[in-house]
Amino acid sequence: MESLREFNTSTRILMGPGPSDVNPRVLKAMSTPLVGHLDPEFLVVMDDIKAMTQATLQTQNELTFVVSAPGSAGMETCLVNLLEPGDEAVICIHGVFGTRLADIAERCGAKVIKVEADWGTPINPEDVKQALASCNPKLLAIVHAETSTGVLQPLEEISKMTKDAGALLVVDAVTSYCGTDLKVDEWGIDALYSGSQKCLSAPPGLSPVTFSQAAIDVLDNRKTKVQSWFLDLTMVKNYWSGAKRAYHHTAPVSAMFAMRESLRIVLEEGLENRFKRHQKNHELLRDGLEAMGFEFLVEKQYRLPMLNAVRIPDGVDEALVRKRLLEEYNIEIGGGLGPYAGKIWRIGLMGESSTPNHVNMLLAALKQVM
Amino acid sequence: MESLREFNTSTRILMGPGPSDVNPRVLKAMSTPLVGHLDPEFLVVMDDIKAMTQATLQTQNELTFVVSAPGSAGMETCLVNLLEPGDEAVICIHGVFGTRLADIAERCGAKVIKVEADWGTPINPEDVKQALASCNPKLLAIVHAETSTGVLQPLEEISKMTKDAGALLVVDAVTSYCGTDLKVDEWGIDALYSGSQKCLSAPPGLSPVTFSQAAIDVLDNRKTKVQSWFLDLTMVKNYWSGAKRAYHHTAPVSAMFAMRESLRIVLEEGLENRFKRHQKNHELLRDGLEAMGFEFLVEKQYRLPMLNAVRIPDGVDEALVRKRLLEEYNIEIGGGLGPYAGKIWRIGLMGESSTPNHVNMLLAALKQVM
Repeated sequence: MESLREFNTSTRILMGPGPSDVNPRVLKAMSTPLVGHLDPEFLVVMDDIKAMTQATLQTQNELTFVVSAPGSAGMETCLVNLLEPGDEAVICIHGVFGTRLADIAERCGAKVIKVEADWGTPINPEDVKQALASCNPKLLAIVHAETSTGVLQPLEEISKMTKDAGALLVVDAVTSYCGTDLKVDEWGIDALYSGSQKCLSAPPGLSPVTFSQAAIDVLDNRKTKVQSWFLDLTMVKNYWSGAKRAYHHTAPVSAMFAMRESLRIVLEEGLENRFKRHQKNHELLRDGLEAMGFEFLVEKQYRLPMLNAVRIPDGVDEALVRKRLLEEYNIEIGGGLGPYAGKIWRIGLMGESSTPNHVNMLLAALKQVM
Repeated sequence: MESLREFNTSTRILMGPGPSDVNPRVLKAMSTPLVGHLDPEFLVVMDDIKAMTQATLQTQNELTFVVSAPGSAGMETCLVNLLEPGDEAVICIHGVFGTRLADIAERCGAKVIKVEADWGTPINPEDVKQALASCNPKLLAIVHAETSTGVLQPLEEISKMTKDAGALLVVDAVTSYCGTDLKVDEWGIDALYSGSQKCLSAPPGLSPVTFSQAAIDVLDNRKTKVQSWFLDLTMVKNYWSGAKRAYHHTAPVSAMFAMRESLRIVLEEGLENRFKRHQKNHELLRDGLEAMGFEFLVEKQYRLPMLNAVRIPDGVDEALVRKRLLEEYNIEIGGGLGPYAGKIWRIGLMGESSTPNHVNMLLAALKQVM
């Protein structure tokens, strides 16, 4: 075949469930000519990323690094390394990503004990307590920020229950990381994964993860091999730390350059300032949307600042509105998933996309379109 | 913590086993501001990539796409989707990557029948014939271009034997793709994976893959779920084709922009021209190295043009030479792996790194350092 036409895309304003807008500094870092994945200079980049990931996750965990694949692979990394066939796992489900956790845990051969809540509400700690008492749990997995519904899940009480039951706490922080408070050590989280493309505002494709010593102990005492070679921490960890820095797979060098610059930007702003900014712009959007008559899916105290799920008013052709926002204003917002497809919009204010200008652009465009 | 110093790396000349040098057009495409992973414009980018991947793999396979992770994940994609517990798999091992194939097949619960050859030589078809006859093989997996030794494995005879045995042919083309002839359809390959960072000269992190109808039939008739959720083709394929283009995971948008531009450059040059260029620069390097007294690990007829494995002369401190090449000349070459660690160098002439200037720079620097 002949070569295709030159690359040419529209300049979008990304206000969906991720990816978010990316800072030009990050794009510039990513376009730096490559170095090898075992170059001493690249190993320093990895060390920098590790240190900044620890800082942004508020953890001292030695086993903190970035999986060379998107957030879903980070989710799978946590479960395939900690579960073995026959293990019992309590999985909390209140949206798409809890459902995915249960699916993966079953593929690991684990017996899954589900704790469910209506989509749009948080998991009830009382239900967790019952589930933990009903089995011999190896771990409990729960989503901190359900991207499918916009629910912020309180974790501290559930963490205590999980510890009391002798189980590991696994947390999905894909959407919360770098956008709202997330204290890995203080909250007793044993394994956590996130994504690069949400409130960190790096391009999608990488998944920051961290593991506590208790999680490493479970890993070290496995009776069976990890079912995934690519995600096997017993090998991956020797590429990220230790004296030898053994080759495992070829790291995505350019994406890691981007990751490093995104993390720098977060630390320049400061975590507290960043969390406040996300909250403030969420309130600005909320006030604007409520003034237009929109209703939020989630009760006020459980709302995510970076992912706003609003009900679509009766009689509105929601797909047409999203299409017009994209085509006429270059603004992307997200539709609903699963049972909420066609029923809600998911408006992201993540990282670089959390600014008053983003809020104002969207509110004005929505008024004009609807 | 405080933010780290500004990003700053040396400008390397990449002549190891990959990544190779990346064309500035690719870096520029990669640094384009993002669009969403479900944006109609991104779906067109995916369609473009699929069409150009089919063309460069010389296949009409409908299920041709790019895994959102490095080549090792492509390897795992092929095996986890085609193997189920209890299946028998013939795995050919003549280097690191055959060893990895066997490891992954075992993690899938398959019974592995190994066909081995000395590292540095190709697999003997007679041995393959025997192995296929000794079991009821679901598939045979073999490495086309062993990156650990520089061997080019002839495939046509082995393909015929595999078909005669009623098994699928799975091929590792990580290093051969876009650098030497690779005829997926004509050679009867049923599943194949490659990497973005070798002769395609895109940044590392993606794995082009293709599956024949026979492979899809095996996938469709599985009795068990694919053990990896992230790599499960029964879901991934609905994101890459079909009317719905269902969300599975968030694709690495920027890396895909880079992939598209790399593929364009390959097609502009033309496959035949590209293969000839790789061969010509290999001969230039070979003549220069032989004039300096170097010996190749591999017999002439089985040598890869893009990955030159040469024995390190007695008395040479190989690690010091590589260090000086890197520090004084910014040139990266690769060391040996496994039994060849410390015994060979692996000199890559891949994609953008396959030029007479690369050859001349390296030969001159080597003379000065040794």
